[in-house]
Amino acid sequence: MTDAQDVAATNTALYEAFETADVDRMQRVWDDADPDAVVCVHPGWPMLRGRDTVLRSWSAVMAGTDYIQFFLTDVRISVLGDTAIVTCQENVLTEVTEQGDGNAAVVATNVFVRRPDGWRCQVHHGSPVLGRLVDE
Amino acid sequence: MTDAQDVAATNTALYEAFETADVDRMQRVWDDADPDAVVCVHPGWPMLRGRDTVLRSWSAVMAGTDYIQFFLTDVRISVLGDTAIVTCQENVLTEVTEQGDGNAAVVATNVFVRRPDGWRCQVHHGSPVLGRLVDE
Repeated sequence: MTDAQDVAATNTALYEAFETADVDRMQRVWDDADPDAVVCVHPGWPMLRGRDTVLRSWSAVMAGTDYIQFFLTDVRISVLGDTAIVTCQENVLTEVTEQGDGNAAVVATNVFVRRPDGWRCQVHHGSPVLGRLVDE
Repeated sequence: MTDAQDVAATNTALYEAFETADVDRMQRVWDDADPDAVVCVHPGWPMLRGRDTVLRSWSAVMAGTDYIQFFLTDVRISVLGDTAIVTCQENVLTEVTEQGDGNAAVVATNVFVRRPDGWRCQVHHGSPVLGRLVDE
């Protein structure tokens, strides 16, 4: 597989781990070589830093989500040496819960770093599209 | 200067260009070696792609902003070869306008790439902190 295909597979693993509430897989997705550099922004949330804090947040989010499915569109992968940037739109289908209200559009920037055992996630930044019009 | 200091200076230039509505400086901040890879998410906006589209959006945003000042906190810089990731909180002080309502907290992930003439911005992703409590 090409680098971009490998990165795409790890990016997909991030969303599949969330969809299946698979804590072990989520742990494997995130980088453990530089745990202090791990960063996660869930849509509308403050910035969470550090692998342990980020993984705890995922456990909480997944425990509070009955059903969620992602349809990724506009996925672009930029491989820059041993770093890869994935930008995409997350089209989110979810049950109505205290955390969400059905369908939502989220845009995401994900940063992956190449390690001896493959690409691992260092940054996930998701943000809500609030429907403001773009003046262009 | 170290790489991290150089990256910090370019990161600062991004916000100073916005504060001073300096279109020329904003153009210099953004990468022009790979214009299709340029990505920008203004808080709450959809993802904008391509250098021209992104610079047009900045011109529109700056034209619609009477006054804005950024106080960056929690700035972390991760240099990975010829790529650098800056994550930070933007504490935004602004006049009340149609685009904003005074003070706001935004978290940002900025990606810079090393070019022969210095570090240039490839990705800016800002997102609003909506006040949801973090369960941790």
